[in-house]
Parts: sequence; C-alpha cells; structure tokens
Amino acid sequence: MNAELRAEECWALLEAETFGRLAYRLVDEVHVVPVDYAAAGHAIHLRTQAGNKLLAAALSSDVALEIDERGEQEAWSVVVRGHLRRLEPAEHPAAVPAARPWLLEAATEIVELVPDHVGGRRFGWG
Amino acid sequence: MNAELRAEECWALLEAETFGRLAYRLVDEVHVVPVDYAAAGHAIHLRTQAGNKLLAAALSSDVALEIDERGEQEAWSVVVRGHLRRLEPAEHPAAVPAARPWLLEAATEIVELVPDHVGGRRFGWG
Repeated sequence: MNAELRAEECWALLEAETFGRLAYRLVDEVHVVPVDYAAAGHAIHLRTQAGNKLLAAALSSDVALEIDERGEQEAWSVVVRGHLRRLEPAEHPAAVPAARPWLLEAATEIVELVPDHVGGRRFGWG
Repeated sequence: MNAELRAEECWALLEAETFGRLAYRLVDEVHVVPVDYAAAGHAIHLRTQAGNKLLAAALSSDVALEIDERGEQEAWSVVVRGHLRRLEPAEHPAAVPAARPWLLEAATEIVELVPDHVGGRRFGWG
C-alpha cells in the first residue's frame, strides 16, 4: 500500500500535529530546522525569534514544511510548500504555537506559511 | 537549555536511528521526502528505486538528511549536509537499509550520502 493522500486528509493531519521540519534554501544550500507550528482553517503559523537569521533566510525563498509519522506497519508524510509572511502584531492569530525554544529562545515573532501546495503519502508494508 | 551537539554525538544519534527526511533542491523548489537509512562508521546509505525521479533530482544538488526526536521536556535535531553518490552493486555495504517502501517500492538501488558537514542541537524547556 502506497497511496497519495487527498488534500483534506493532509490538512487534517497538519491540524492534528504541532511539530514539523521547515526546509528552505540559502544560496545553494538546503537547510532543515525543526519547528513548532499551529494549523487551523488551512492557515499555518510558526513562532520564531525577532531578527532570527534562519527566518530571514527562509523569508527570501520558497519553503516546505514536512510532518510525518512512522509506525511498524505503516507511515505517512505530508509536505506543505509555500512562502513565509511575517505578521504584524495586530495580525497575530488567536491560536499561536506554544513558545518553545525550537528555533531560538525568546521567540516573539509569528510568521504565516502561505501554502501554494499540499500533498502527502501513506505507506504500508508487512 | 539549548546546546549544540558535538559531531560525535550527532554520529551516535545517526547510527541509533534508521528513519529521517532527505531535503534537496529541484530548480527553485525545496523537496523533502522521508527515507530509511543505515549509518555506520560515519557512512550513510539510503535505499531507493532504480530510475527514481526523486533520486535523480537529489543526485544533482546538495542534500540535507535530518533526524529528530521531540519529547515533552527536551528534543534534539541532527542534520547531515552532503551529496549523494550512486553505488555500483560491488560497492554495496554489508549493512543496508531495510527494503521498506519509503521512497518507492522495489527499492533496489543503494546510494551513499557523502557528508560534508554534520551538526545538531539539543533543546530543553520546562
């Protein structure tokens, strides 16, 4: 079994999870950092530190947020591709990601991942 | 607590795990796919399908393999940056990753991730 997930299945998984990895380009290099996020209503918000160099780099390129779960008999992976947008304080959503020191401590800035595409796969074996 | 891991700590974590995510560039896009891998003696091998388009794309750019674990009180993430090299059958290592259908089924080809840099962080809170 190796099946593509429908977009709504991908969003349901994104809304159920709060931890993923953000991949972005910096010049010719690919970078991957773990992030806490909150997804609701097809909107995704990440919390980060003001002035974070990682964020600055990520803001200048398209990014991919990946979540996955791997069990003994099956696994799945969802990737949202899009770009990041820094939010003004007045735009901060009611539900923001927990302030955990993933990217860096004192993470006071909130960015939105504006999705261009979401896709995922479910894998099974055994 | 938010500390960089020493290279030897990163390698110990890489050798203890067998599942991660491979990030690579394709033109301007960043891609992330889940992979099963095997790490031993600072060598990393991934199994994939012959003719896999993902692999072809990944072979043409630098890649990053990320592993992580997130608990309630602490978490860590390790990233190995490098490039992929397709192995001839005679070069196949004794210990290869389990043939699980992560990238695609019938994954008969083995590639080596030649590391340029390894780094990681341990995060704690609470």
